Amino acid sequence: MQAEIITIGDEILIGQIVDTNSAWMAKELNAIGINVSKITSISDQKEDIVSSMEQAMERVSLVLITGGLGPTNDDITKKTLSDFFEMALVQDDLLYERIKERLAARGIPMNRFNEEQALVPDRARIITNNYGTAPCMWFEKEGKVIISMPGVPFEMKGIMRNGLLGNLTTHFSTSEILHKTVMVQGIGESVLAEMLEEWEANLPTCVKLAYLPSPGVLRLRLSLIGEDRKELERIVEEQTAKLIEIIPENIFGFDDQPMELAVAKLLSDKGKTVGTAESCTGGNIAHLFTSHAGSSIYFKGAVVAYSNEIKESVLKVNADVLLKFGAVSQQVVEQMAMGVRDLLNVDYAIATSGIAGPDGGTDEKPVGTVWVAIAGPDHLSSTKLDLYKNRERNIKVASLNALNMLRKLLEK
Amino acid sequence: MQAEIITIGDEILIGQIVDTNSAWMAKELNAIGINVSKITSISDQKEDIVSSMEQAMERVSLVLITGGLGPTNDDITKKTLSDFFEMALVQDDLLYERIKERLAARGIPMNRFNEEQALVPDRARIITNNYGTAPCMWFEKEGKVIISMPGVPFEMKGIMRNGLLGNLTTHFSTSEILHKTVMVQGIGESVLAEMLEEWEANLPTCVKLAYLPSPGVLRLRLSLIGEDRKELERIVEEQTAKLIEIIPENIFGFDDQPMELAVAKLLSDKGKTVGTAESCTGGNIAHLFTSHAGSSIYFKGAVVAYSNEIKESVLKVNADVLLKFGAVSQQVVEQMAMGVRDLLNVDYAIATSGIAGPDGGTDEKPVGTVWVAIAGPDHLSSTKLDLYKNRERNIKVASLNALNMLRKLLEK
Repeated sequence: MQAEIITIGDEILIGQIVDTNSAWMAKELNAIGINVSKITSISDQKEDIVSSMEQAMERVSLVLITGGLGPTNDDITKKTLSDFFEMALVQDDLLYERIKERLAARGIPMNRFNEEQALVPDRARIITNNYGTAPCMWFEKEGKVIISMPGVPFEMKGIMRNGLLGNLTTHFSTSEILHKTVMVQGIGESVLAEMLEEWEANLPTCVKLAYLPSPGVLRLRLSLIGEDRKELERIVEEQTAKLIEIIPENIFGFDDQPMELAVAKLLSDKGKTVGTAESCTGGNIAHLFTSHAGSSIYFKGAVVAYSNEIKESVLKVNADVLLKFGAVSQQVVEQMAMGVRDLLNVDYAIATSGIAGPDGGTDEKPVGTVWVAIAGPDHLSSTKLDLYKNRERNIKVASLNALNMLRKLLEK
Repeated sequence: MQAEIITIGDEILIGQIVDTNSAWMAKELNAIGINVSKITSISDQKEDIVSSMEQAMERVSLVLITGGLGPTNDDITKKTLSDFFEMALVQDDLLYERIKERLAARGIPMNRFNEEQALVPDRARIITNNYGTAPCMWFEKEGKVIISMPGVPFEMKGIMRNGLLGNLTTHFSTSEILHKTVMVQGIGESVLAEMLEEWEANLPTCVKLAYLPSPGVLRLRLSLIGEDRKELERIVEEQTAKLIEIIPENIFGFDDQPMELAVAKLLSDKGKTVGTAESCTGGNIAHLFTSHAGSSIYFKGAVVAYSNEIKESVLKVNADVLLKFGAVSQQVVEQMAMGVRDLLNVDYAIATSGIAGPDGGTDEKPVGTVWVAIAGPDHLSSTKLDLYKNRERNIKVASLNALNMLRKLLEK
């Protein structure tokens, strides 16, 4: 069962926004056995919308369209689809009332733009959008299903999760797709390819393998397609076990589990807490921990010490040590880790200090020099990383390395 | 001058990664007058690559392809393109040496996969990739240009910036495209549409307007296409000035300037410093400030206080006040702001405390209840936000609102 996604909006084509919707939708569709074979981003123009949709309908039986459903004049999707499917736009009274209520709750009177939002194509099936005022429309033509949704991510996600995915499962009988992703760190792509060569050559034909490198992490994805889910599950378990035998030290998780959740699980299992003292990572490690629900159980807090004064006054780094070795040094990062561990009264502390760039490097300490330390109840260790010229990448990779140091310590 | 982008990789189609490359490329191409009319994401399959490329070549004169150039067996782009353009794969000696050196620097011997990376199509033009081992290939056929680049973002960006964009400017004579984005906060899409109705109706025909809502911020984009850049610049200035007259209070910046940089500029201009005390935003405000180079001038540090103990011990929030009003309260968030201002010795402090969700809400304080406070030299203010059920959205919108409060104060 194949589907295509079409995203409408000039903002994507001029690079003003990144299309995050498609990835999210593709993942959800995969989980119910629908394989996305193509994603197309087009502009808010009638002829582009019609031709892309017609082409997609020739190739697949399901086309999901997002975007162009806002209340403003640049949004033409609803009108275009109504014309294409030869339907008239009529007022949906329920939708009209919902829009009116939503606006009233925020003290805004209904205007002409809102009234137009309550119009829907007369023979389309309307899927409820509890998160906004744009309707989700389900069209059918010659056995094909075409769905139009708003492009605002949380509205689209709400519609998919609260109704549309269920409707699609009922409508289509789908074949089984199984993905398993193995999260690998500390080993480069071509070295890994060589280590896995024999294993890869002997994979069953129903298994497709992909190497997905990203800053600090390499993901190995096994994709299986077949009719018998149990059999696919058996094969994927068997192959994963073989993989772990080949690279036992380098696997830190599965299925896109982020590094901070691998650490979180170890902390929770042991009933331990963590805090961070961040200089070059600027709060990113704290932000990673706290983006997950329930993190207050193991994550207690952080001190972002972006100035030497704060390293001294809050983290109790020794002034002489700071002067002698500089902020980016083993001595200072170790004192930061111990300082924050004591200040926040946590079991484990992570500290970072480095030159994120693009400026601030010296011959001795070029941009990308980062010191990372871990302090535990009876533990203090540190390591120096030689990273890159790019600030964003340095913040990301330094955060991952620091988290990974703690992970390895907790796994001992 | 129109171009299309094709991204190759199953990881995009199953939603494992978000295609951020296309947005970046589109923006850079726009800046040199090349308009991206379509972005297509396809799988690592020969027939998909060939058919998508053939279709794109029928529509536009430039096709940029990313992905599928890694050293592993799932990467088939180079072979597919060589076959399509009827070229033989031959060793590029310079590339071979560069790959060997790069690996040697990391202590890795060259293997068969690396040797294959040094093969290039014999009549393609090779653009240097200083950031990795995959080649960038420039093909020409019947007046059309087809470019294949690696999909790893920092390699692709390096290739574009350090050579390819210049080559494209030389090769194509391009018409002028001008975009201006106006950043708006505190006003909803349909209300704004009504306020701007007259202005919008009177826009010159060369101007296209788009409303781009996102959590906490609405962007208004004016896009102009023409031959005379000076004239386009004059028109856009004129129209922006009219816009500022209509909504003077709601515009905080232009051209995708993020809120934290609007605040940063005001702080820098006044020679003032800032720090944060974050509970529900978990370090995200600190992370936003510190993702920008040079932030150490105005951003001094942060305390992420995810537990009541830390609010008390580090930020000096009164224990009785915490007990009486709870952590998510006006009293506590104001004490947090004052506490961190004094602790970090900064001019201004931002504090947040709220229920980010999805759990932890009560009838009195449901998920999405967030208190934000600003403390200045002779200033203390706070406000309550009633946000959403979604954790990620709440962290983002609370951060933006807090930053905006400080911005308004600094602008007074």
